Amino acid sequence: MRAVVLQGHRSVSVENVPDPSLLGPASAIVAVDRTAICGSDLHLYHGEIGGQGIQLGHEFVGTVVETGPEVRRLRKGDRVIVSAVVGCGHCNSCLARDPVLCTGGGPRVFGTTLELHGGQAELCAVPAADSCCLVIPDNVSVEQSVLLTDILPTGFTGAMNANIKPGGTVAVFGLGPVGVFALQTAKLYGPSRILAVDRLPERLARAGELGAEPIDASDGQAVAKILEATNGLGVDSAIEAVGADATITDAIMSVATGGTISVIGVNMNMEFPYPMPLAFMKRLTLKAALVSVPATWDHLVPLIATGKLYPEQVFTHRLPLSQAADGYRIFDNRDDGVLKVLLEPSR
Amino acid sequence: MRAVVLQGHRSVSVENVPDPSLLGPASAIVAVDRTAICGSDLHLYHGEIGGQGIQLGHEFVGTVVETGPEVRRLRKGDRVIVSAVVGCGHCNSCLARDPVLCTGGGPRVFGTTLELHGGQAELCAVPAADSCCLVIPDNVSVEQSVLLTDILPTGFTGAMNANIKPGGTVAVFGLGPVGVFALQTAKLYGPSRILAVDRLPERLARAGELGAEPIDASDGQAVAKILEATNGLGVDSAIEAVGADATITDAIMSVATGGTISVIGVNMNMEFPYPMPLAFMKRLTLKAALVSVPATWDHLVPLIATGKLYPEQVFTHRLPLSQAADGYRIFDNRDDGVLKVLLEPSR
Amino acid sequence: MRAVVLQGHRSVSVENVPDPSLLGPASAIVAVDRTAICGSDLHLYHGEIGGQGIQLGHEFVGTVVETGPEVRRLRKGDRVIVSAVVGCGHCNSCLARDPVLCTGGGPRVFGTTLELHGGQAELCAVPAADSCCLVIPDNVSVEQSVLLTDILPTGFTGAMNANIKPGGTVAVFGLGPVGVFALQTAKLYGPSRILAVDRLPERLARAGELGAEPIDASDGQAVAKILEATNGLGVDSAIEAVGADATITDAIMSVATGGTISVIGVNMNMEFPYPMPLAFMKRLTLKAALVSVPATWDHLVPLIATGKLYPEQVFTHRLPLSQAADGYRIFDNRDDGVLKVLLEPSR
Amino acid sequence: MRAVVLQGHRSVSVENVPDPSLLGPASAIVAVDRTAICGSDLHLYHGEIGGQGIQLGHEFVGTVVETGPEVRRLRKGDRVIVSAVVGCGHCNSCLARDPVLCTGGGPRVFGTTLELHGGQAELCAVPAADSCCLVIPDNVSVEQSVLLTDILPTGFTGAMNANIKPGGTVAVFGLGPVGVFALQTAKLYGPSRILAVDRLPERLARAGELGAEPIDASDGQAVAKILEATNGLGVDSAIEAVGADATITDAIMSVATGGTISVIGVNMNMEFPYPMPLAFMKRLTLKAALVSVPATWDHLVPLIATGKLYPEQVFTHRLPLSQAADGYRIFDNRDDGVLKVLLEPSR
Repeated sequence: MRAVVLQGHRSVSVENVPDPSLLGPASAIVAVDRTAICGSDLHLYHGEIGGQGIQLGHEFVGTVVETGPEVRRLRKGDRVIVSAVVGCGHCNSCLARDPVLCTGGGPRVFGTTLELHGGQAELCAVPAADSCCLVIPDNVSVEQSVLLTDILPTGFTGAMNANIKPGGTVAVFGLGPVGVFALQTAKLYGPSRILAVDRLPERLARAGELGAEPIDASDGQAVAKILEATNGLGVDSAIEAVGADATITDAIMSVATGGTISVIGVNMNMEFPYPMPLAFMKRLTLKAALVSVPATWDHLVPLIATGKLYPEQVFTHRLPLSQAADGYRIFDNRDDGVLKVLLEPSR
Repeated sequence: MRAVVLQGHRSVSVENVPDPSLLGPASAIVAVDRTAICGSDLHLYHGEIGGQGIQLGHEFVGTVVETGPEVRRLRKGDRVIVSAVVGCGHCNSCLARDPVLCTGGGPRVFGTTLELHGGQAELCAVPAADSCCLVIPDNVSVEQSVLLTDILPTGFTGAMNANIKPGGTVAVFGLGPVGVFALQTAKLYGPSRILAVDRLPERLARAGELGAEPIDASDGQAVAKILEATNGLGVDSAIEAVGADATITDAIMSVATGGTISVIGVNMNMEFPYPMPLAFMKRLTLKAALVSVPATWDHLVPLIATGKLYPEQVFTHRLPLSQAADGYRIFDNRDDGVLKVLLEPSR
Repeated sequence: MRAVVLQGHRSVSVENVPDPSLLGPASAIVAVDRTAICGSDLHLYHGEIGGQGIQLGHEFVGTVVETGPEVRRLRKGDRVIVSAVVGCGHCNSCLARDPVLCTGGGPRVFGTTLELHGGQAELCAVPAADSCCLVIPDNVSVEQSVLLTDILPTGFTGAMNANIKPGGTVAVFGLGPVGVFALQTAKLYGPSRILAVDRLPERLARAGELGAEPIDASDGQAVAKILEATNGLGVDSAIEAVGADATITDAIMSVATGGTISVIGVNMNMEFPYPMPLAFMKRLTLKAALVSVPATWDHLVPLIATGKLYPEQVFTHRLPLSQAADGYRIFDNRDDGVLKVLLEPSR
Repeated sequence: MRAVVLQGHRSVSVENVPDPSLLGPASAIVAVDRTAICGSDLHLYHGEIGGQGIQLGHEFVGTVVETGPEVRRLRKGDRVIVSAVVGCGHCNSCLARDPVLCTGGGPRVFGTTLELHGGQAELCAVPAADSCCLVIPDNVSVEQSVLLTDILPTGFTGAMNANIKPGGTVAVFGLGPVGVFALQTAKLYGPSRILAVDRLPERLARAGELGAEPIDASDGQAVAKILEATNGLGVDSAIEAVGADATITDAIMSVATGGTISVIGVNMNMEFPYPMPLAFMKRLTLKAALVSVPATWDHLVPLIATGKLYPEQVFTHRLPLSQAADGYRIFDNRDDGVLKVLLEPSR
């Protein structure tokens, strides 16, 4: 079969690789219908993590073509959403659909190591399939399904962890697809205001269309602007969807006394400089979290099915899998107004 | 001054009464700018509670014209919202703006006894003024302010107590003004569906315009319709805004296993028939609550000020205070598409 | 094999019945080591529910002697605790160990119908065994294990649902085994006072030994005594562990404004008289709940294993299974200082 | 009057200073009955904050000798506990007894600046007295009262913010008086185990007497020992009561996936190195907080009054105010088994 393989720094190619086989009796093989490129794939593309030969991709949906003998909730022919994050599938946390708390080996992400191949491919082997797959529900389209594998749940996790109260104020840092979803799902908690921070005019304009107040950070004055917009108090909740030290610091400096900073951007700094005296005097809460994708489906699926959330707007580019290298390049360069790239293995 | 006085069964009149004087050193006198007739005023109008001579009205806003020596947060000339519910003003609960938990005498409602005159009048004496008044904030109109004295907070209390989760399902029973506000504030918690139950076509139509799914209860089949609409499961949360035994029972029968029933309708049955075995097997939570008006302002004021809530739409009739008797009659008879009657003492 | 079978009003006998067989591929057969008689078994014994021929018992632990092909978490020879309450085992709620919210048929209790035989027997067939069994952990004795099948989790559910705050006040109504466990687990939430209500001197004395303040209800003045003991305010939380209308009413009348009533006693009144106006003015929360046994194990097992909870004290009588009829009679008559009867099938 | 005055590095003296006068109409003067030296006084003693001439002390109780005209809840002769932390007294947060969230100037601590004199003195002027004083309740001794001004509330804040669940596991880092109180109040949340970390044998022994499991950190292996004691998982909750970078880091490394780190030790590092990738993968919550003393009284006072908490055991030294310099030296040197020093101005 064909799969997108990491070749080196800023280099991927579509290669013929062996078809996957089951990863044990609880595993399933999925024929991929659609798969997307994620911002966190760029960490591999840029050589920050991982290495040559990794079969990429953790956002994918497809059709079950084979199941191991212990798979009980899925059948051949089922069209399924696959969680980007999987655990052992057996422990109490995995059974309760919270793979981040997996005590049977911890969480893993598809397509980030040589051990667990990704879904930017024609086929993908899914371990612990009962625990990480969901049959695509009625009234949810295939493109919406792709967004339920990772980034909509991630944005929602950012909102969920931000302690947003009815009438409260929120700032979202970074308006890429994940940030846009954090913004949209922050509304589920009834804030009176959402301040949306980015450097790119088109992203700020989009945030405005979604009902947020744009804060242009291109002059480095985001914190000052947020304080000015809130009578010097700051916001109750900040959601960071970039992962850079600078934006996390801005998020911390933007929250009011008693506030919460919810980090969903992937930050690699093991010594991130946290202002402890400030946090102490202002009684701040800092929460950073990898998403437990399946735990969010009960919330998000009905909201999509009833049209309350309409995430599919983020797809700006739809390419055949064969053009994956172009897709990565466009996405990495932010060319052509790109927001999110969808790949179709059948093409 | 002139005040609306209860005369007897379905009879009120505007009478000349003595001007009020301060109710102690923490009291203030307010010149009423606007006041509204509330559904719970009809309990007095119908003779269910209270008696002749009561000066009515607990929804009013006005201008401070006199303050006692211990009033610190208000000054003469301030235009203020007055909470319908007041406590002693001194205890920890009142200081924390939660008069329902007042330990210094318990909560009282303006205009429901001979002891605490109401605000359907030219002037009203307000006890513990610091604790129950709010200077009308920027970007909040006078008509919006009237709704912040009772019924918008009451609707919000219904939603707040209903344990609504993002993506959850809600049913609101009764689509009078309070129910409409319960519906609107239920949205602050991100449900995927709101089922709106009433018998009147125009009310059901309005609920539909607000994004809810109308359930026509005029055939007595509301519960069956809700179960059918939810695959037999029922809704996660039910908000009862009528106060009748039958609608509370319908609310109970409509919730799913693990669900919550939040009652804000005023029910007078000291032996309401609660189905305990059902509640036990389905792990239900029943919460009934008088509203702690001031505790809701931090949530609701910013939502109004930013246009996220627009409650003033409920006013269908604006009359001079002198026509209060007409106002009561129209409201009681549900004549003329009435939803909410506003009275203006200056006219 | 031998099993305890309901014969009629106040009549049980130990009968030879067919050995059980697996209840499907996810089922297991357990050889019962110990089993106890529960207060709710008396509802059957008294003929209030169920009927002749029911094989009784929902509190039992034993050794797995056979497993269906889909059982994955248990093996032959495992010594297991079996939850009194089971669901389908497949739905998200059952997987998350919350069978009360089971959407695949709802919760069932062993030994209460002709369809699901009970564990007062030498052998018992357990459906959905992965979801309702726990291998007996280290440092947990067999007698402690029996109490983890139902009544300790039930008492804990009462405490958990009562909104107990550090420094708060609690009243427990009924000091049978479940009430004693509610009392002990209420302490896990740090109350300053626990008032313990019963009519029997020995039960009141035991509550005193456990650090509670005894309230003798034998004169019908429990509410007055609780109000007197709390300066007229009432308690913050009431836990009802009897199930009688009168004690539930006492619990309601004993809570303070803003309080919570948590009912774990089994009450059969579909028209229990709830004082709605009082609940409204005092902002009360009423919660009734069947226990989701497996959901409590993560909390209770470590507390037993570290000696923080020592529930086994409740066993006053240990009899061979062959004397089950005596056990029922003693327990029903409250003879001989009985608190809890343990049966041993091997004898 | 006499007051303890900071003279320079490791130097304090008792000086004659002018009697205090009221700090405005809402202020009161308190004649100090007892006052204690706090670990955070050592930050001034060591010259880390503050400077020469500061009148020290934020833990004191006394008798009201004068009140401003706006004081309503206190009268001359009242014996009062004074919160170490005060706000403006007027804003909603202060009225709700949460001075840390004060929007009228923010929180201040007595005896840490030249502007707000401390209570290690014969007299102390208290601003916003209604909001930061509590009349000493029945069944609370004067020594217990001193501990309610700061360090028992601080320890409790550490426990309250640590998300401790019934049956959960906790580690407390640092077993000085605050850590001991964190340990004692952690028990209010029903953990199955408390691991107590320190370097001093006598502190570890005391923790053992309080029911905790001592972890000797003197070899720098605290994290490894905690992981070993928890099967490699770590604890659910860590409370840090030292304030050093190293112990905060140990606390972070000791918590399990999904865990919470609650910091109450005072740390001065504006660039504390936080391991963001670890926090992200393990979904950690970090909470640091100055204590809102008055908000804790409703919880702690009844627990002391009923003997559930017995904090006064920490006082090892009782000296006249005139020997304050000795008191500071002993406390700073940890001489003579000192845990907490009480000063008596009348001596």
